[in-house]
Amino acid sequence: ILGLFSKIYGFFREAWRLGMDDPKKFFHCFKVGIALSLVSLFYYMRPLYQGVGGNAMWAVLTVVVVFEYTVGATLCKCLNKATATFLAGALGIGVHWIGSHFGEKLQPIFLQGSVFVLAAAATFTRFMPSVKARFDYGVLIFILTFSLVSVSGFRVGKLFEFASHRLSTIAIGTSICILTSILFCPVWAGEELHNLIQTNMEKLADSLDECVAEYFRKDARSEASNKISVGYRCVLNSRATEESLVLFSFTNYASIAQANFARWEPAHGGFNFGHPWKEYRKVGASLRSCAYHIEVLNGSINAGTKAPDFLKKHFSKFCMKLSSSSSAVLKELVFVTHTMTRSAKIDIIVEEMRSAVEELQIVLKSLITQPINASTNINIGNEESDASNTSMSLIEIAPLVTLSSLLIEIAARTEDIAKAVNELAN
Amino acid sequence: ILGLFSKIYGFFREAWRLGMDDPKKFFHCFKVGIALSLVSLFYYMRPLYQGVGGNAMWAVLTVVVVFEYTVGATLCKCLNKATATFLAGALGIGVHWIGSHFGEKLQPIFLQGSVFVLAAAATFTRFMPSVKARFDYGVLIFILTFSLVSVSGFRVGKLFEFASHRLSTIAIGTSICILTSILFCPVWAGEELHNLIQTNMEKLADSLDECVAEYFRKDARSEASNKISVGYRCVLNSRATEESLVLFSFTNYASIAQANFARWEPAHGGFNFGHPWKEYRKVGASLRSCAYHIEVLNGSINAGTKAPDFLKKHFSKFCMKLSSSSSAVLKELVFVTHTMTRSAKIDIIVEEMRSAVEELQIVLKSLITQPINASTNINIGNEESDASNTSMSLIEIAPLVTLSSLLIEIAARTEDIAKAVNELAN
Repeated sequence: ILGLFSKIYGFFREAWRLGMDDPKKFFHCFKVGIALSLVSLFYYMRPLYQGVGGNAMWAVLTVVVVFEYTVGATLCKCLNKATATFLAGALGIGVHWIGSHFGEKLQPIFLQGSVFVLAAAATFTRFMPSVKARFDYGVLIFILTFSLVSVSGFRVGKLFEFASHRLSTIAIGTSICILTSILFCPVWAGEELHNLIQTNMEKLADSLDECVAEYFRKDARSEASNKISVGYRCVLNSRATEESLVLFSFTNYASIAQANFARWEPAHGGFNFGHPWKEYRKVGASLRSCAYHIEVLNGSINAGTKAPDFLKKHFSKFCMKLSSSSSAVLKELVFVTHTMTRSAKIDIIVEEMRSAVEELQIVLKSLITQPINASTNINIGNEESDASNTSMSLIEIAPLVTLSSLLIEIAARTEDIAKAVNELAN
Repeated sequence: ILGLFSKIYGFFREAWRLGMDDPKKFFHCFKVGIALSLVSLFYYMRPLYQGVGGNAMWAVLTVVVVFEYTVGATLCKCLNKATATFLAGALGIGVHWIGSHFGEKLQPIFLQGSVFVLAAAATFTRFMPSVKARFDYGVLIFILTFSLVSVSGFRVGKLFEFASHRLSTIAIGTSICILTSILFCPVWAGEELHNLIQTNMEKLADSLDECVAEYFRKDARSEASNKISVGYRCVLNSRATEESLVLFSFTNYASIAQANFARWEPAHGGFNFGHPWKEYRKVGASLRSCAYHIEVLNGSINAGTKAPDFLKKHFSKFCMKLSSSSSAVLKELVFVTHTMTRSAKIDIIVEEMRSAVEELQIVLKSLITQPINASTNINIGNEESDASNTSMSLIEIAPLVTLSSLLIEIAARTEDIAKAVNELAN
C-alpha cells in the first residue's frame, strides 16, 4: 500500500513539475475544459439544441478529437476534418444514389463493395509518407464518414438531413476549437519550433564547453582521487548529451511536424504568414550533425588511453580556445535566431573561430616536424621536456589528435549552422 | 496539366513501390476493408440491427479508429478503449446521479463543472510521458465518453440504455477488429521490431565496410581523375548513413512503441508471451551509438587534409582488418538475433576483433617511437621511405589517427551490441 501511495505521490509530483516547467500546459488544459463547456451549452439551451437535433454529440466528439496543443495543429486538423467530411459525404451520397438504381437486393452488395474498395485504398495512402505527414487525420475521417454515410443511409433514409447535420455540428465544433485556441493564450506551433531550435543550440554550446573543459580539468588536480568523480561527471554529462541527442532526433520529427503545422498559422508575433518554416529543418539537420560529433567527442574523451600531461597542457590552451569560440558562435546564433536580424558580431566570432582552427592546425603541424629537425628530443615551444618524453608513441597522442580533429570538425559544422541561421535571418 | 498528370503518376508509382516492398501493407488494407464490411453487416441484417438499435454507427466508428497495422497496437487500443469507456461511463452515471439531487437549475451547472474539471485534469495527464506512451488513446476516449454521457444524459433520459448500447457496440467493434487482425495474415509488433533491429544491424555493417573501403580505395587509383567520383560516392554514402541514422532515431521511437505494443501480444512464432521486449531497447540504443560513430567517421574521411600515401598503405591493412572484423561481428549478430540462440562462432569473431584492435594499437605505438630510436628517418616496417617523408607533421597523420581511434571506438560499441544481443539470446 505504501508503495502505491508513493507511486501516486510521484505521479502528482511529476505532473506538478511538468506544469511548472511550462505553464502553457496548464493553460491548454483549461482551454480544453472551456471548449467542452461551450460545446455542451448546445445541449442545455433548448433553442440551440432543437437547431441541430440529437446530433449535437458530434460537436462534442469533434472538440475532443480536434483540439490540439498548438494553434497550427488545431487548424490543420480542423481543415482536414472539414474537407474530408465534405468530400466523403458528397461521395457517400453519390454512391448511394447510384446504388438506389440497383434494386433492393443488389444495393447492399454494391454499397458494401464500395466501402470495401474505398476504405482499402484510403488506408493504403496512409502508409505513404507524403500523405501521412499532412493528411493522416483527414484520411481517417474520410473513411469514417464515407462508411457512416453510405452504410447508415440505407436505414436512416433522410440522408441529406443526416449529412447536413453532421456538417453543421462539425462546423460548430471546429469553430469553437479554433476560436478558443486562438483567443485564450494561443500556443503557436511556429513559436514552439523557434524556441526548440534555440534551446537546442544553447544545450549544444553548453555540453561542448563542459565536455572539453572536463577533459583538460583532469590534470589540474591530483590523479588518483579524481578518477571516480570525473568518471561520474562524465557519465552524467554523457547522459545529458545522450538525452539531448534523443531530444534532437525527436526534435527532428517534432520540427517536421511543427513546420508543417506552422504553415497554417496566421501572422503572429514576429512571424508573418509566409515565414520560411522549411528553413528550420535545415538548421535542425545541421544541429543534429553537430550533436553527433559532440557525442562522439564525449565518448572518445572517456576512452582509456591517456595522453602525457605536458602535451595535454600544451594542447589545452588551443583546444579550449577553439571549443569556447565554437560555443560562442553557437550562443551568438541563439541571439540571432531570437532577434531574427543578422548581427554584425557573428562574422567576427566566426572569423575568430576560424583563426582558432588554424592555430590548432599549426600546433598539430609543428608537433612532429620539430623533433625530427631537433634530433631525438621532443621540444614543444617553451615547455621543458624531461627524459621520459623522448619515447612518446603515437598511441599516447592519439586521444589528443582525435580530440583536435573532432573539434575542427565541430567548428566546420558550427559554420554550417551559422550559414543556415543567417539564411533564415535574411 | 502535364505537371499534374506526372504528379499523379508519381504518386501511384510510389504507392506501388511501397506495396511491393512490403506486401503486408496491401494485406492490411484488405483487412481494414473486411473489418468494415463485417461491421456494416449489422446495418443490413434486420435482427442484428434491432439488437443494438441506431447506435450501430458506434461500431463503425470503433473499427475505423481502433484498427491498427500491428496486432499489438490494435489490442492495446482495444483495451484502452474498452477500459476507458467503462470507467468514464460509470463515472458519468455517478456524476449524473449526484447531479439529479441538485434540482433542475443547479444540475446543468454541476454537470458542466464536472466536465470542465475532469476534462482539464485528463488532458493534463496526456502531457506526461509515462501516460502518453501507453494510455494516450484511453485518456482521449475517457474524456469523450465522460462528456457525452454526462452531457447527453441530461437530454436522453434513458441513461443506462445509452451506456449499455455504447458498451455493446464497442464490444462488437473491438472483437471484430481483434479477430480480423489476428486471423488474417497477422502482423505482429514483436516480429516487426525484431526485423527492424536486424535490418539496422545489417545496414550498419554495410556502411562501415563501404566507408572504410572507400577511404583506402582512393590511392589505389590515380589521384586527379578520381576526386570527383569519390566525392560523389561519399556523398551518396553519407546520405545513406544519414538516412539510416534518421531511421535509427525513428527506430528508437518506433521500437519503444513497438516494445510497448509487443507486450500485449499472445505467443506467436518463436516468441512467448513473456518475451523480454524491453531488452530490444538496449540493443537499439547501442546500435544508435555505433551509428553516430560511423556517421562521424564518414564525415572525417571526407574532410580536407590528406595523409601521405605510403602511410595510408601501411595503415590500410590494419584498418581494413578491424573494420571488416567489426562488420563480421555485426553480421554474425544479425544471425544470432535471427535464430535467437547463442552461436559458438560469435565469441571467436569477437576475439578476432579484439586482436585486430590490438594490432592497430601496436601499429600506432610503433609509429613514433621508431623514428626517435632510429634517428631522423621514419622507417615503418618494411616500407621504403623516400626523402620527402622525413618531415612528416602530425597534421598529415591526423586523419589516419582519427580514423584508427574511431574504428577502435566502433569496435568497443560493437562489443556492447554483442553483449546486449547475447543477453537477449539467453
